Amino acid sequence: MNNFIFKNGTKVIFGKSTEELVGIEVKKYTDKVLLHYGGGSIKRTGLYDTIIKSLDEHNIEVFELGGVKPNPRLTLVQEGIDLCRSKNIDFILAVGGGSVIDSAKAIGVGVNYEGNVWDFYDYKTSPEKSINLGVILTIPAAGSETSPSSVITNEKERLKRGVTADCMRPEFAILNPELTYTLPDYQTACGAADMLAHVMERYFVQTEDVRFTDRLCEATMKTIIEQAEKLIYDTESYAARSELMWCGTVAHNDILDTGRGGDWASHSMEHEISAMNDIAHGAGLAIVFPAWMKYVYRENKGKFLQFTTRVFNIDQNFDDPDETILKGIKALETFFTNIGLPTRLSDIEFDESLIPEMAQKATLNGPIGSFKSLLKDDVEKIYNLAL
Amino acid sequence: MNNFIFKNGTKVIFGKSTEELVGIEVKKYTDKVLLHYGGGSIKRTGLYDTIIKSLDEHNIEVFELGGVKPNPRLTLVQEGIDLCRSKNIDFILAVGGGSVIDSAKAIGVGVNYEGNVWDFYDYKTSPEKSINLGVILTIPAAGSETSPSSVITNEKERLKRGVTADCMRPEFAILNPELTYTLPDYQTACGAADMLAHVMERYFVQTEDVRFTDRLCEATMKTIIEQAEKLIYDTESYAARSELMWCGTVAHNDILDTGRGGDWASHSMEHEISAMNDIAHGAGLAIVFPAWMKYVYRENKGKFLQFTTRVFNIDQNFDDPDETILKGIKALETFFTNIGLPTRLSDIEFDESLIPEMAQKATLNGPIGSFKSLLKDDVEKIYNLAL
Repeated sequence: MNNFIFKNGTKVIFGKSTEELVGIEVKKYTDKVLLHYGGGSIKRTGLYDTIIKSLDEHNIEVFELGGVKPNPRLTLVQEGIDLCRSKNIDFILAVGGGSVIDSAKAIGVGVNYEGNVWDFYDYKTSPEKSINLGVILTIPAAGSETSPSSVITNEKERLKRGVTADCMRPEFAILNPELTYTLPDYQTACGAADMLAHVMERYFVQTEDVRFTDRLCEATMKTIIEQAEKLIYDTESYAARSELMWCGTVAHNDILDTGRGGDWASHSMEHEISAMNDIAHGAGLAIVFPAWMKYVYRENKGKFLQFTTRVFNIDQNFDDPDETILKGIKALETFFTNIGLPTRLSDIEFDESLIPEMAQKATLNGPIGSFKSLLKDDVEKIYNLAL
Repeated sequence: MNNFIFKNGTKVIFGKSTEELVGIEVKKYTDKVLLHYGGGSIKRTGLYDTIIKSLDEHNIEVFELGGVKPNPRLTLVQEGIDLCRSKNIDFILAVGGGSVIDSAKAIGVGVNYEGNVWDFYDYKTSPEKSINLGVILTIPAAGSETSPSSVITNEKERLKRGVTADCMRPEFAILNPELTYTLPDYQTACGAADMLAHVMERYFVQTEDVRFTDRLCEATMKTIIEQAEKLIYDTESYAARSELMWCGTVAHNDILDTGRGGDWASHSMEHEISAMNDIAHGAGLAIVFPAWMKYVYRENKGKFLQFTTRVFNIDQNFDDPDETILKGIKALETFFTNIGLPTRLSDIEFDESLIPEMAQKATLNGPIGSFKSLLKDDVEKIYNLAL
């Protein structure tokens, strides 16, 4: 086990009707808030009205910036920064999924930074302070509600980049599983794939003596798979919605990688897929992760045997470990297929000729991954395995 | 799953040589500190010198209060409160195990409270503020290093009582597994039993739809059992020491009971045993928990079957669930015996005639437990089952 520091001070308020508490929570920080959200779904479902009512009751002035899209755009972030500056807004309430929260985080660190906020995402400098953030989560997936990370797409340069900084962690996150009943099945599935990938990125490392966090990861993966499959035929199961929602947060709240680190090559490779094709991040992960596994498993067969036997309860073939491992990868692909996700680049609109450029961009800042360090050539091979 | 709020902002600094960072961490809060500890072991091991050196380097003035005993006493707490008041000390650095930390927490909430600090432990009022606390943990067991709880013994009245309040959570906790190499085997074993009990108190509840936290609990229990048994023959295994230490914190950092609550009857019953006999808390739990299990398992056999099959990998006898469950309880007793702990009251010095008085004290504030609500009569029966 490696030395580590773990601190996650985000207050999670979880359960039925908890969105009604938003005014009380925001009031602890401010009288003026930027309400940041995506399309019109929060107005259709009535969530918008509930939020405005609660903020009004606590005399909180509300400014609005909607229009966040999946793979949130830098231009909207810059608009939000300008708005906060011109109105002296010191708190952002993000209502939505990872894209909205990540956009809010980017605005948060941009408000008091004199340069271009893209500097942070271009690794020119690191964010040191942010205005305060609160979250009402409507899409369990990215785990951004308690994480210190944000991923933004620079649409002009077709670049998708992530930043991690402690100051980006929200002050509070309100999670009501009932708010997720209305999600399209495909979006629920993409969310499950995203959270599963967050665990797998942490699980597949070469760090030794991490039995405890291995088991915590396995517990999380088993639950995600079980509950996401349950939602296929029972979309309004509060039990399944709540289990999946809490898994999504824990998958990315940093406790699962204490003392072990992570790999994150698959995330880097997926970012290039969704920067090119604008498919949902979770769908891209369902495509890239099995290909990555096939390419790297020989680096540590024990880890993949453990994954296969513990997460999928597949009996080990002691005479042929590769067979067992490939069964595990196949079981993962079957899970993705069961919940309606693509598992190949050929399942989506994809231009094969882009692969060299994508591999080059994915490795722009050097090799990626820790389970096996991947160069441009390796990444190309993985994209090809995913065809 | 129940609605819940989860927030644990304690900064955990984990790993080799991390105690050398104590000056940097304390300096963020104060220039004056009460160093609170137990017997002389921190002086024998050199830890005391390391701490003083680090505090000196950061020009932090040090006052000292040693002498905390297992089952920490109210009189020393009152001495600490007087010392902090007279010297205007606003930070307590607790160096030790749960007893020292719990004593520091009691001092922390007592300093600015005008009444007698025992009022909090007598449930007359709740603590609302505390001076800041930091911890260097030397005994992985109680989980007090990131918990909001403190248990104090009123030696005059032979009462042992616990208080939980958010303001009691330490600001930081430094955990170096190397510091635990010198623990006597018995103390390591008591620590393992304590942390295992913390998980079991959360695991054995009647709350439905808690598959995720069930699995997180099972992951933690399996690791505690595995690593504590490893330490029997390999006491200086950094791997085992670090896994066990991190388990002890997570067992009690509140994440395992999110959305489900806990039972805590066994803790209440144990408090009466150690208040009478002054045995280690972990040893008392090893005695009382199996007896509690035998008494209550019929309330929810499914939960006990799950425990037996998942934690101990015992095959279920589908024709005779009771047989399987009793095998699980037996396996737990065998684990306790393997690591050198008593599992019966007859294994320790115990006066059977005290049982009615103990049962009466344990239920002084009403029935205890949630898995099965226990009255005085039930508690007497459980003590008798433990004979």
